Amino acid sequence: MKAISILGSTGSIGCNTLKVVEHLAGEFRVVALGAGRNTEKLAEQIVRFKPELVAVETENCAEDLLRRIADSKIKIPKILVGEPGLIEVATHEAAETVVSATVGAVGFVPTLRALEAGKRVALANKGTLVIAGELMTKAARASGAEILPVDSEHNAIHQCLRGESKREVKRLILTASGGPFRTKSKQEIEAATVEQALNHPTWRMGDKVTIDSATLMNKGLEVIEAGWLFGFSAAEVSVLVHPQSTVHSMVEMVDGSIIAQMGVTDMKHAIQYALTYPTRQKNCLPPLDFAKLAQLTFEEPDTEKFPCLTLAYEALKIGGTMPAVLNAANEIAVEAFLNGKVKLSDIPKIIESVIQEHQSQTVTDLEIILETDAWARKQAIMKLQKNASAS
Amino acid sequence: MKAISILGSTGSIGCNTLKVVEHLAGEFRVVALGAGRNTEKLAEQIVRFKPELVAVETENCAEDLLRRIADSKIKIPKILVGEPGLIEVATHEAAETVVSATVGAVGFVPTLRALEAGKRVALANKGTLVIAGELMTKAARASGAEILPVDSEHNAIHQCLRGESKREVKRLILTASGGPFRTKSKQEIEAATVEQALNHPTWRMGDKVTIDSATLMNKGLEVIEAGWLFGFSAAEVSVLVHPQSTVHSMVEMVDGSIIAQMGVTDMKHAIQYALTYPTRQKNCLPPLDFAKLAQLTFEEPDTEKFPCLTLAYEALKIGGTMPAVLNAANEIAVEAFLNGKVKLSDIPKIIESVIQEHQSQTVTDLEIILETDAWARKQAIMKLQKNASAS
Repeated sequence: MKAISILGSTGSIGCNTLKVVEHLAGEFRVVALGAGRNTEKLAEQIVRFKPELVAVETENCAEDLLRRIADSKIKIPKILVGEPGLIEVATHEAAETVVSATVGAVGFVPTLRALEAGKRVALANKGTLVIAGELMTKAARASGAEILPVDSEHNAIHQCLRGESKREVKRLILTASGGPFRTKSKQEIEAATVEQALNHPTWRMGDKVTIDSATLMNKGLEVIEAGWLFGFSAAEVSVLVHPQSTVHSMVEMVDGSIIAQMGVTDMKHAIQYALTYPTRQKNCLPPLDFAKLAQLTFEEPDTEKFPCLTLAYEALKIGGTMPAVLNAANEIAVEAFLNGKVKLSDIPKIIESVIQEHQSQTVTDLEIILETDAWARKQAIMKLQKNASAS
Repeated sequence: MKAISILGSTGSIGCNTLKVVEHLAGEFRVVALGAGRNTEKLAEQIVRFKPELVAVETENCAEDLLRRIADSKIKIPKILVGEPGLIEVATHEAAETVVSATVGAVGFVPTLRALEAGKRVALANKGTLVIAGELMTKAARASGAEILPVDSEHNAIHQCLRGESKREVKRLILTASGGPFRTKSKQEIEAATVEQALNHPTWRMGDKVTIDSATLMNKGLEVIEAGWLFGFSAAEVSVLVHPQSTVHSMVEMVDGSIIAQMGVTDMKHAIQYALTYPTRQKNCLPPLDFAKLAQLTFEEPDTEKFPCLTLAYEALKIGGTMPAVLNAANEIAVEAFLNGKVKLSDIPKIIESVIQEHQSQTVTDLEIILETDAWARKQAIMKLQKNASAS
């Protein structure tokens, strides 16, 4: 049995990972779980999967968790708190694979430590490679750790690249659903309400990611991640709008051949792939039904309507700390949109103005990224305040 | 420089192979060419590619060829005649790769000899694996020879299987354009003229193959070939109608993942792939334009309207000499249709009646196949004569 740790076990990816572990009964044992404040769900997971170690956000959470599992007949695991706890989860000696599925910056250092310790990292934390792609991939190379992407596009590209040589790849092609505003005019996008922007056509996700899908920033961030993950430049990563989301992504080879990966849209596929790679095993999902599929369409993205995509490409081209600035400014701008403080079309404007004031630096350590992140957030907030007082 | 031989150099695949050799200047030298009666084109090829050995169909052709190249300044190659000549081309000591692109049975023994000699065979001869899949693949295994398929569907599957393990494959999915009668009723197909049947929607091919596309027998024969080539049973090879012919074929893995290969519809792609495998190189074709592509559709084949597909599956399931019977009876029936002697819907009826009278035998050697082939042709002709006298 292979041992795994999960960072973010009570979130959507974490729960789906545990479903995959149950499906592949007897193949994986869960040695460590890291969560935030959802002690109710974590307690259930502990009783069911019996990890040796768990981490929660605060001392209060730890006490609450202990109360919840005290009456169960299981051996009480070691309970740790905060970032040091997550780092212990990520570097648990027995763990061969660490599923990195926390939301936001909290999983950042633990994931880096897992890579430094040579663990396979099944990476679902969207931001990690955007803000620290260079650090993460450098750490992986140094220790021989593998990064297996769990989001459907990068997982698809990983599958398309099996048996292929990187130098024979012409470009990666990330497919994009196009979001809820694909067929809308620039004026309609300008006037979009929060409710309209949250109405994503194919995937159900958190609010932040759904807004990123509406602006295509989500795809822009994926371009940056793909660049780091597979070692390609901005010019070698394309985006193609494919509203049905059936083709999860593609790779074009130098001989013109396109290799595409398709499947049902369920994260359990990619999670299982990342856990069992290089082998493939039966999963618990229904097969793709081509008869129901009927038709697949493709179109070039409209960067006029979705300038966030262009901004992400620029950030990847500039490199260094610029992608971290893009990411931080976007987070602040999206939050402001969700709170009704700015229009959807203000998001790229805020990001662009912060980017223009940033002088990109080489990323040599964590501190530079954290400083840059803080600086960019402050700048974005200042822009918002200036906007508010101007209007 | 790698040395190659071509069986059928003056045909469409042969000429395209030489274009690929020219495109990949300096990588391949042509050591032997086998052709039929087209001495004019063969003479041009000899002057341009300077093979050491050539084979033509008859002594007359050899004399004619010699006259045509006598005045050129090249060193006159050795000129051989008939099947022994083709066998020498196929087993030329220097040749690492043999392109098997003759039409019909003439390339059959030479291809087997090339495999026995351990050559890589780039296989374009459609019938070879249908009538002698067991012999050919057994010879290849014994000598360690590789068979690289040149037709677009099998070539696509070969690409999809790169980096995959055979035991993790759930099924192969051959795509089919559906032919000119895809949207027609059973009655319309019954009444189809030769002209209508020859009007294929996407590919330009010879008459026999085009009729096979109209009856879907072409796809049935490809199912049999795929079974032998990749080592899968009839139940593990599916057909999916895809009128745009952009997805050349697909593989479904046990984890539900579908890997698909797409590209422009030009045989030079597959030819180059077969010559340069495992490396991929730039080719002379335009890239696939997704913006122009617009939409891809898929539907299950209608075996009610196209019973030839079912007959082919049955022949593969029964195995032994049965696929050779199917192939021979189909050739006779298609010829009769092209000559206006039977209706399109008579083709499966003739094949079925011949199949029903055949007791399948294990294929132990060439003779059994040749005898079976002759028997099935005679039976099919007898059925036709009986039909004619009855009507």
